[in-house]
Amino acid sequence: MNESQQIIDHLDARQPEIVEWLKDFLRIQSVSADPAFAPDMREARRFLIERLQQIGLANVRLLDGDGEPAVYGEWNGAPGRPTLMVYGHYDVQPADPIEQWRTPPFEPTEVDGRLYGRGTSDVKGSTTIALEVIAAFLSVRGGCPVNIKVFLEGEEETGSPSLRTIVARHRTLLRADAVLSADGGRASASVPTLNTGARGNAQLEVRLRTAHKDLHSGRYGGSVRNALHEMARLVASLHDAHGGVAVQGFHDGAAAPTERERADTAAFPYDEAAFFSDVGGSAHGEAGYTARERVTLRPALDVNGLWGGYTGGGGKTIVPCEAQAKLTTRVVAGQDPGAVIRAVLRHLRQHCPAECTLDVIAITDGSPASTLAPAHPLVRAAEAVLERETGARPIHVRLGASVPVTSIFKETLGIDTLMFGFNLPDEDVHAPNEFFRLQSIREGTRAWTLLLAELAKYSPAAFHAGALE
Amino acid sequence: MNESQQIIDHLDARQPEIVEWLKDFLRIQSVSADPAFAPDMREARRFLIERLQQIGLANVRLLDGDGEPAVYGEWNGAPGRPTLMVYGHYDVQPADPIEQWRTPPFEPTEVDGRLYGRGTSDVKGSTTIALEVIAAFLSVRGGCPVNIKVFLEGEEETGSPSLRTIVARHRTLLRADAVLSADGGRASASVPTLNTGARGNAQLEVRLRTAHKDLHSGRYGGSVRNALHEMARLVASLHDAHGGVAVQGFHDGAAAPTERERADTAAFPYDEAAFFSDVGGSAHGEAGYTARERVTLRPALDVNGLWGGYTGGGGKTIVPCEAQAKLTTRVVAGQDPGAVIRAVLRHLRQHCPAECTLDVIAITDGSPASTLAPAHPLVRAAEAVLERETGARPIHVRLGASVPVTSIFKETLGIDTLMFGFNLPDEDVHAPNEFFRLQSIREGTRAWTLLLAELAKYSPAAFHAGALE
Repeated sequence: MNESQQIIDHLDARQPEIVEWLKDFLRIQSVSADPAFAPDMREARRFLIERLQQIGLANVRLLDGDGEPAVYGEWNGAPGRPTLMVYGHYDVQPADPIEQWRTPPFEPTEVDGRLYGRGTSDVKGSTTIALEVIAAFLSVRGGCPVNIKVFLEGEEETGSPSLRTIVARHRTLLRADAVLSADGGRASASVPTLNTGARGNAQLEVRLRTAHKDLHSGRYGGSVRNALHEMARLVASLHDAHGGVAVQGFHDGAAAPTERERADTAAFPYDEAAFFSDVGGSAHGEAGYTARERVTLRPALDVNGLWGGYTGGGGKTIVPCEAQAKLTTRVVAGQDPGAVIRAVLRHLRQHCPAECTLDVIAITDGSPASTLAPAHPLVRAAEAVLERETGARPIHVRLGASVPVTSIFKETLGIDTLMFGFNLPDEDVHAPNEFFRLQSIREGTRAWTLLLAELAKYSPAAFHAGALE
Repeated sequence: MNESQQIIDHLDARQPEIVEWLKDFLRIQSVSADPAFAPDMREARRFLIERLQQIGLANVRLLDGDGEPAVYGEWNGAPGRPTLMVYGHYDVQPADPIEQWRTPPFEPTEVDGRLYGRGTSDVKGSTTIALEVIAAFLSVRGGCPVNIKVFLEGEEETGSPSLRTIVARHRTLLRADAVLSADGGRASASVPTLNTGARGNAQLEVRLRTAHKDLHSGRYGGSVRNALHEMARLVASLHDAHGGVAVQGFHDGAAAPTERERADTAAFPYDEAAFFSDVGGSAHGEAGYTARERVTLRPALDVNGLWGGYTGGGGKTIVPCEAQAKLTTRVVAGQDPGAVIRAVLRHLRQHCPAECTLDVIAITDGSPASTLAPAHPLVRAAEAVLERETGARPIHVRLGASVPVTSIFKETLGIDTLMFGFNLPDEDVHAPNEFFRLQSIREGTRAWTLLLAELAKYSPAAFHAGALE
């Protein structure tokens, strides 16, 4: 701990400079979704390359996948020690609706210990934490406890469209034993948590036809099948009266939550009433589970969009011939998302009358759920750090949402990811008045320092699946 | 017949000019449902006013009811003879889905004796027939066999929302003995038919909400109500497995078909298999009735449009908070359309879970079904003309479609309407690739010439209900 304490003291002394650097980073309007911000995206890359070079990383460069390039730099001075890819992203969500911001979205503003601005919480704040810890190790001790490959993506907010291409083109360069992600934050402000997985997903879009064309409801009404009636019957057949999925095979492979998972879920401070009332929603779902269990430990099936017939102003007296629906599943550990989405399609086909035509417009196998085993070095190291820092054993939590980059790194590089960002759930990410707690910078730089030191205790082989069986 | 033959010869010689004028009329994009077409609606009125003045009608003007005004003109040179209101409409249905048209919807195109374009069949073609017959009488003989009041509506396709106001404001001007409508066409290409009634209708649009905003399907999926699932359950509950309406009170007041109605329906040349296969549709409806009976003698309920969630390209992982649906009913003789549509609304409210919000976006009482007695001069005159032209006794048929104007004229002016349009059932009205047979213009101008002459044989009083008892 003495070595780490030296780094922590250094980082504590540098807090004002760290905040100033973060503010400069936040002033760059690196909105990836809007081509109007292309010059700002370039400026963000220039800014990061300069910093990675200052820090003393080697091989600092852009990795291009025909989209927004990633910024890369490495330090390979710890032979025999694990190699950790440190992931962050430099792109941010658009700032609109701008009129709802109380401070300018791209002029970071401190108010009562909070730093307001677009990208503060998602995820320039936590990315800065990770970079500053590496900088501190290199500056104070001339080296890190583990080998480091910094990978800063520029397309996280647009769904990482070129990430697979980047990895495919630079597979050797990116070889590592695991990923430490600055994205994916703490789940609670009151208790320490550790993210051990996320649901996977898959997608289906279908079109149902009942006739060659829309029919006049005066001439045909009452005598002929209506595509919207048929689609409604199909969609209604997907769930039971409680909201559980009624599709045969849908739950195949989904292991029942373990006692530990249920206990951890119950231990997580979670206001179920507020979860629904905050958004005006109401509970509905698989019988036998709490809302939090349903969202994190059980699969789900949602129709995300449905349309057919006349949708303009006024009325149009037609019997619509066509209806279309977009569906997505969320799958849990043990499930094959491709098999799950095909079970949904099989159900639709079985329930579709022979007189109707059901066409698949799109079907994607998606990504399986991700899971970090309790014995994984990433989990054990993070638990050790969090317990030391907070005095409490961290609760294992799983994300209901899917994390594409985690799936992509697992699929393409075969490595697992620990999400170790320091944002908190109330920080209005993707919304006006996003903020990051300044205190989180101090907590984050301490924790990342300890984490790198802790991870150095494991052999590189220990990070790979085989070692965990 | 000699006098009439002179008019018919004149009209035959003018066919090319009549078609050219109709094409100019069709090029005007007079879509009443969409405010974007307001300038085209004005242009259609200007175009018709010019023509009515050319024809030699008096008192040509717009009749305003705070919606789209009607175009009016009159000829009152036959004192003691009946006064016929000649009804047509200058508005058309929207052209969407535009990509399914093989020719531009507003550039009328002749292909193999058919004129393609929005409004050709419904109902600019038959409106032109009526106007040209009046023009021919005035041009060739300096007068018509009966008094004429031309009334061209601009809101037929939107359910005639201001027609009652127009009639109320101009009750004296519009006084007549009966209505000859260019709308409501021939029921068969092979046998003469005579329209003796139509279904009524009513309309409902509802919005269902399950939350304040669309929710992230990762964070909420599986735990919360989804507006599209709920709307699908509601819509699915409206019909039984055979396609019959399952709404309590929906059939209230609907008289069972009479023996004559069932016999006429059976006598009508009707290829049930072709009725469905022509449009790729399949039979579905109330048990105990043939398809043709279902369409003409029984009420119906259709969802005309339904939408919610994400409907753009690709996917979006949301739990939609809102779904909307447009519904219309068709009602038969004896039913109160307002009571029927409120039964549908009551059903939706009863089946909507308490946790969801169901809002009525629009509800219109619509129009009751209409019926012409067999002894009415309109029926007898039309029977005489059709029998003379075809050599066969016309079969009485009822329309499955609704004709609100017929109900409104009956209710407000106390007069009956003969539908004498010359469109045919396969002409894709309200759909892409609508067309009108050029041959129908010749047949229609002949028949309208004979009909006006025939109607002149009756006293004005003979047209009124009391005379028929």
